[in-house]
Amino acid sequence: MVNWFWQRRNRTEAPKLRSRSADLGRKVDLADLTPGVLHFLGQSAYLQLTLFENLSRAVSNAPTPDAKESLSYVASLSLAKHHGLTALIRKHGSQPGVVMQPFTAGIDEFQRRTSGQDWAETLMTCYLTAGFLDDFFESLAGGLPGEYAARVTAVLDGDDGAERLVELLRSAIEANPRLASRLAMWGRRLVGDTMLVARSALAASANHDRDEERIEPVFTELIAAHTRRMDGLGLTA
Amino acid sequence: MVNWFWQRRNRTEAPKLRSRSADLGRKVDLADLTPGVLHFLGQSAYLQLTLFENLSRAVSNAPTPDAKESLSYVASLSLAKHHGLTALIRKHGSQPGVVMQPFTAGIDEFQRRTSGQDWAETLMTCYLTAGFLDDFFESLAGGLPGEYAARVTAVLDGDDGAERLVELLRSAIEANPRLASRLAMWGRRLVGDTMLVARSALAASANHDRDEERIEPVFTELIAAHTRRMDGLGLTA
Repeated sequence: MVNWFWQRRNRTEAPKLRSRSADLGRKVDLADLTPGVLHFLGQSAYLQLTLFENLSRAVSNAPTPDAKESLSYVASLSLAKHHGLTALIRKHGSQPGVVMQPFTAGIDEFQRRTSGQDWAETLMTCYLTAGFLDDFFESLAGGLPGEYAARVTAVLDGDDGAERLVELLRSAIEANPRLASRLAMWGRRLVGDTMLVARSALAASANHDRDEERIEPVFTELIAAHTRRMDGLGLTA
Repeated sequence: MVNWFWQRRNRTEAPKLRSRSADLGRKVDLADLTPGVLHFLGQSAYLQLTLFENLSRAVSNAPTPDAKESLSYVASLSLAKHHGLTALIRKHGSQPGVVMQPFTAGIDEFQRRTSGQDWAETLMTCYLTAGFLDDFFESLAGGLPGEYAARVTAVLDGDDGAERLVELLRSAIEANPRLASRLAMWGRRLVGDTMLVARSALAASANHDRDEERIEPVFTELIAAHTRRMDGLGLTA
């Protein structure tokens, strides 16, 4: 089974960011490394819940009711993805709490490490980790059996409101240019922790070297997309 | 215009709680004291956002993925109410951020005072303040002009997921019976702060004594409903 890794929507890019059309049509085959259905659903559902928690913290700490209202919409999109995934777990005949349990310790630690020290850092976390992980899990979803591939893709492919996060981040940097270097550093740190969480979702096959061969170009592309997000904010990746 | 104060749905009651049918048909006229449309929408929208923030904090602090998942659903209901109200503000041709601004200081202070010291207290806040304030704003909504009365009522009348909060609170008290007296005290304190926020939403007429005459039975009923919520948890109000 072939995954079309860059079936691009415009959703993770703000308008005016560099087009990703150069990547269109690039095929990356990760299907061999897609974990079992319940592993996939449990891990991605708990991760989406964590992304929602980060967004709701950003809502609480937002400096204006305008920013709160805008972020609350982004939070609702993330929550809808979480509920779309837990609905698939229930459809499978399983309990979301039970299925998510094995992934809580690792993802809670990821959340702790990426929570950020202030509102701007939290916004960066919301933008960059969700962009990276939604791309990654969508690329893995193609390897799910039966109808799960299409159903999970439909859930993850929904609007993620990234353009609102970009707008708020740009305003924050404009209002306080000294933020830029701190946020650039924070963005670099985030990518490491985010890659670790993504890797933990991959099933290992018997052939370790072949696994690495397949994983490497995927992560190269994920990091390239991360770099474009940073560029779009005027930050050095 | 007459408000039917206790047009009861079963939504704020857990199954097996005492029926409120005794209150059905009781008429309370608060329409004279309903503030202007934008005042009402701005204040209730910002309040709903605050209730959502409290719920999302409860999601983040929940001890199990099961509790997180259940609470995230309650949070999504509260967020949908907030977005229903901001949609009405936009339909009016106004900006939600601007319209909510005058109410942020008072409501932020309410949120600070009612945040609770741990997860169980936060859950109590989510259950008791949302129950009280949704009832209150629904009773006021009847005094809104034109289509606003029906539209706001439709938004506020939606399911609020209270039965899930009751279930989690009962389990927490069962697991740790010493919680009961602390939560009973917390519930008593909450009602005072919640009443203050509710009163701040009332427009004063020229006749202060008549205002008091109308307000008093409404608050008597709101407090009675609060007492039933406490009873339902096995707590002394």
